[in-house]
Amino acid sequence: MTTTEISVKMVLDRWYASIASADTLLNSLTDETLQKEIAPGKNRGIYLLGHLIAVHDDMLRLLDMGEKQYPQLFLPFIENADKVSTDLPSIAELRADWTMQYGDLKQKFDALKTDNWFERHTAVAAEDFAKEPHRNKLNIIITRTSHLQYHIGQLRLLK
Amino acid sequence: MTTTEISVKMVLDRWYASIASADTLLNSLTDETLQKEIAPGKNRGIYLLGHLIAVHDDMLRLLDMGEKQYPQLFLPFIENADKVSTDLPSIAELRADWTMQYGDLKQKFDALKTDNWFERHTAVAAEDFAKEPHRNKLNIIITRTSHLQYHIGQLRLLK
Repeated sequence: MTTTEISVKMVLDRWYASIASADTLLNSLTDETLQKEIAPGKNRGIYLLGHLIAVHDDMLRLLDMGEKQYPQLFLPFIENADKVSTDLPSIAELRADWTMQYGDLKQKFDALKTDNWFERHTAVAAEDFAKEPHRNKLNIIITRTSHLQYHIGQLRLLK
Repeated sequence: MTTTEISVKMVLDRWYASIASADTLLNSLTDETLQKEIAPGKNRGIYLLGHLIAVHDDMLRLLDMGEKQYPQLFLPFIENADKVSTDLPSIAELRADWTMQYGDLKQKFDALKTDNWFERHTAVAAEDFAKEPHRNKLNIIITRTSHLQYHIGQLRLLK
């Protein structure tokens, strides 16, 4: 393995380990518990679950992997703060979306070769990318893994 | 820049951005607030601050960068759960350690060249590393960044 291949493996391994950690945690929490706030006056578990799905859905666009699969989650779980939208999907629906989504993302990630990960993501212009080659697809995985871990730390408080 | 150099840059950038994010957050919280629990019955802010310093201190050993600087923090902030040790350092002391530490780590990280990051960390045996070259120093940064983000998500609840 080259150092570049090792780098891609390490970043993807961390993503998958984080997804697995979130998945185990979510499976250990009842629907009733996910309706609770992680701390008094803070976001509820259901909001964080919907938020993660919506943020991961946006990765498809950034990675040039197709259209959003859950565009209806943007307004209630990204644009709006928790408790603003009154018409949220059920936790059962969100759990199904979460499971479907991580399998779908894995399939799409598996289709990329090492060099593809160093191509620019869609939110950076070609001329900027020429000067800032770190604004690539692999960096989307790195930053979204950070984001995921941040919210896992919060969801963990529902245990 | 080679794709390997870009990879190292992305991983270190994410580490430094996470440290900066934690630093800004810690500076926005008073000593009194850091004495509070992040959620009822959960860890206090002071525990998470000490825990982060102790975990980052252990990186020196893993990265073969010398002895621990804060060995006295291991027992109260890693070995023991919160509220077990009765004799904790003051928050002022921990804040000073935190600031000293991230500068010290940066200086040590800056001294490493790209190839050095792909050398084995000290917790893996040479024969295992030959088969698992991803168990390198850069991976320590990747996993510790995840750990840091997890706890930033929790500390954020004190705001």
